[in-house]
Amino acid sequence: MTGISRRHLLQLIGTAAGSTAMYHAMTAMGHAQGSTYSGPIQLDGDPQGAKVLVLGAGLAGLTAALELRAAGYEVEVLEFREKAGGRCWTLRSGDTYTELGGDTQTVDFAEGNYLNPGPWRIPHHHHAVLDYCRRLGVQLEPFMQKNYNSYLHRSDAFGGKPQRLKEIATDHRGHTSELLAKAVDQGKLDDMISADDKEALLESLKTVGVLNDNYGYVESLDTSYYRGYEKGPGGGMTAQAIPSTPIDLSTILDSKLWTWLATHETLNHQMTMFQPVGGMDAIAEGFAREVGDLITYNAKVTSLQQDDSGVTVTWEDTANGGQRTSTADWCVCTIPFSVLGQIEHNLSGELSSVIDTMFYNGSVKWGLEFNRRFWEEDEHIYGGISYTDLPITQISYPSNGYLSPGPAVLLGGYTWRGANSFEFNAMSPAERIEVALEYGARIHPQYRDEFKTGVTVSWHKVPWTLGCSGIWQNKERDYEQAVAIDRRVVCAGEHLSDLPAWQEGAILSSLDAISRLHDKVLNG
Amino acid sequence: MTGISRRHLLQLIGTAAGSTAMYHAMTAMGHAQGSTYSGPIQLDGDPQGAKVLVLGAGLAGLTAALELRAAGYEVEVLEFREKAGGRCWTLRSGDTYTELGGDTQTVDFAEGNYLNPGPWRIPHHHHAVLDYCRRLGVQLEPFMQKNYNSYLHRSDAFGGKPQRLKEIATDHRGHTSELLAKAVDQGKLDDMISADDKEALLESLKTVGVLNDNYGYVESLDTSYYRGYEKGPGGGMTAQAIPSTPIDLSTILDSKLWTWLATHETLNHQMTMFQPVGGMDAIAEGFAREVGDLITYNAKVTSLQQDDSGVTVTWEDTANGGQRTSTADWCVCTIPFSVLGQIEHNLSGELSSVIDTMFYNGSVKWGLEFNRRFWEEDEHIYGGISYTDLPITQISYPSNGYLSPGPAVLLGGYTWRGANSFEFNAMSPAERIEVALEYGARIHPQYRDEFKTGVTVSWHKVPWTLGCSGIWQNKERDYEQAVAIDRRVVCAGEHLSDLPAWQEGAILSSLDAISRLHDKVLNG
Repeated sequence: MTGISRRHLLQLIGTAAGSTAMYHAMTAMGHAQGSTYSGPIQLDGDPQGAKVLVLGAGLAGLTAALELRAAGYEVEVLEFREKAGGRCWTLRSGDTYTELGGDTQTVDFAEGNYLNPGPWRIPHHHHAVLDYCRRLGVQLEPFMQKNYNSYLHRSDAFGGKPQRLKEIATDHRGHTSELLAKAVDQGKLDDMISADDKEALLESLKTVGVLNDNYGYVESLDTSYYRGYEKGPGGGMTAQAIPSTPIDLSTILDSKLWTWLATHETLNHQMTMFQPVGGMDAIAEGFAREVGDLITYNAKVTSLQQDDSGVTVTWEDTANGGQRTSTADWCVCTIPFSVLGQIEHNLSGELSSVIDTMFYNGSVKWGLEFNRRFWEEDEHIYGGISYTDLPITQISYPSNGYLSPGPAVLLGGYTWRGANSFEFNAMSPAERIEVALEYGARIHPQYRDEFKTGVTVSWHKVPWTLGCSGIWQNKERDYEQAVAIDRRVVCAGEHLSDLPAWQEGAILSSLDAISRLHDKVLNG
Repeated sequence: MTGISRRHLLQLIGTAAGSTAMYHAMTAMGHAQGSTYSGPIQLDGDPQGAKVLVLGAGLAGLTAALELRAAGYEVEVLEFREKAGGRCWTLRSGDTYTELGGDTQTVDFAEGNYLNPGPWRIPHHHHAVLDYCRRLGVQLEPFMQKNYNSYLHRSDAFGGKPQRLKEIATDHRGHTSELLAKAVDQGKLDDMISADDKEALLESLKTVGVLNDNYGYVESLDTSYYRGYEKGPGGGMTAQAIPSTPIDLSTILDSKLWTWLATHETLNHQMTMFQPVGGMDAIAEGFAREVGDLITYNAKVTSLQQDDSGVTVTWEDTANGGQRTSTADWCVCTIPFSVLGQIEHNLSGELSSVIDTMFYNGSVKWGLEFNRRFWEEDEHIYGGISYTDLPITQISYPSNGYLSPGPAVLLGGYTWRGANSFEFNAMSPAERIEVALEYGARIHPQYRDEFKTGVTVSWHKVPWTLGCSGIWQNKERDYEQAVAIDRRVVCAGEHLSDLPAWQEGAILSSLDAISRLHDKVLNG
């Protein structure tokens, strides 16, 4: 790269021609496609000592604090909890957590084991999260989203016996490739494809579907090389492999296990995915190393008022008692709308009505610790996720410590909306764990013998969010109103992004909010 | 699991009914499908002080040494090299390697960077390798085989511009799903599928192919969620995503990039795959910790003779000079046939003719170190493999140290047979590296600016193997002869397995060989 840098070029294009031109330029340069983040934010110009009060030290608030201080602002952060991160949170041995309703869980996992109750994986295209990890020295390791040896399970399919993803995926692809190839070969699609394309199409279907020379998807060592053998190839005298028998198409279709075949193929779930080594809160800790000195913890905001001269926030010091007041010229409010709606404020009526109508998802997660990695030792499942139609929806195996002895924690369930979550939310933690064991044992019979301890988080009962992520009543109508600067206050967070429930959404929302705020501070 | 254990049950079945019954039982229990290894070998019965001479301390020899000593044998191992591992080999900073022809390379990588010139990845179903890693305390991390953001590249497609795997894969799947769905919907395949299956088939194609309600695969936010957006979803005011335009089917077909679409789907390449932390030779070191005391290094075998009373091996002490002799009752010979054929021996004529006719693959590999991870920083490729029709065939990005600053090593090419390997083999190491840079720069223009240092191994020039892996002249005719015990000598190694070139094949071959040898020792 010589002369003018790509980033500078993009900035010029963006400034001169507006955002659409910039996106087209980015695409032409092959750098768009994922998150819109393309490098550290530049907040040029002197804010002349203006002070910003940041409410909430989750990723949106932490990002705002870091970047605004770097741009020359005086920054004060108020955080409800005793530490930074918000939903970027990890529960590990010795941690105590009390949910709404008063149930307290003390985590009894073995050293090094943990549950990320909130965000737990980082897609490869969440460039902002990845860049902050790089800048903050947060070490990442692969999160194993797709594991071909994991299970697909439905209670009403295959007698309730879990099937390997590799078998269902290979067989569905094989049978459908066979159908299309034979139809093409027989001329049935001559009105749909050109004669020029026909040969290459047939060849590609043979490759992708593992078809034989007659375009058949059949029992063979070739197809077994994809779906698994009955007996795998070995060494010495007993080397010869024995092919397995594909499952017929009708059985695959009836099973409905194909409903999960595209799950790992979305941009948000394509390999390579990441997780921070040791737990997601390594990101929060990375931010806290930089801006921890700006944060007042145990500060429960009770009132947010603004007028022409500034912003006044009243808060309760939940550690030492007493009511305090903080003032500033501007405010970045990252408090979830579910909580903000219960705080006294004088935000505009338009913004208030969005705050009051935003519903929050009620996700539930379980971390279950077992005496040994039976999923690895007995079933050869190393990381990845098994999906089920049971209310737990999935079981995700740890993407670290592979093959190690001793206790390990798996994600025993993850529900994110609908009736299941409400049902689980109504249970005590002990009941929730009991039910997750009951369901999980239908997939892994080892559950009952090997279970050691567990922890479960129902996000509707998390005191500082009252839910997992924001859901709009009418996003098209309300979105611009909610993200607009409301006099001296701008709101930010995952709820104010097109990547809801993802950390990337929280950071991008924050970067966009502080850019606009900075512009307003400088230019009015 | 209560009462009789699964393993014990399988042992009983295996003992009582022979191996076929055991495989069927294993399949019924859902535990076959991959490698035939199902747990540590049991060599019961007292060998009464019999001595076995193991030739070669690669994985086959190391396995034999470990298990035979555990079974009560006296074991002596002779190894040509100065350390254990054979092809299980890692080159790192400070290492010196002299290939046949006399060219010496001194590896100048930064601390922690390395190249595995031989085996470099471990499939999830290579149960023997994984179990030895577990037993030997070898720490594993994921090897990122499939990365949807890696490239597919052909010089004659898309003007030589690399394409993202996610785009080609999603578009091929989408277009073929559309063709099949529309044909089915229009009744063109009514003779091929039942009315009962029709609806579920259509639904499954919509899911897998990301089709709209008219079974079309079209530009939309839905399809962009799989193939990538033109502008990804963001936060705040600029949140709205812009869809990307799928590549049309004819262009996809013409490009021939679909030839790689099944590459990651084989049993040997399905995620989850592993690599040892720090380099593949961690496995060799793990074995050496256990059986290093049995190994004489720098021992170049020059003669292998057997008679009714025992085995006599003559070897040259290449470290201290001089010719030595070792004797034993039995011999496990893991010397590659490419080398064994050049050693004086009195093995049977049948075995000798197999030894003399086995050809060895001439794989070539490159480790190229660059000043920074431009593939991550500029192109968001974290691990995985880009494929190309250029003679280097592929570029594999490091599956460790993600997002870290400083120099990193990628695999700059991996050829495994055919003309390319011969051509590269004829070059000096410096020429080979120059050519790999030339080719690689067509995929990553950053190559020339960022290149730091490199090392390359052409396996036909590796003194202790003279090739990468064995190729049979006539496997069907010769295999049983070659694996049979030849009086007092049994051969083992990847070449005597149905998993050639894989470490699993070497270990399984060895386990099978020593089982038969042990049986002969006990029962004659």
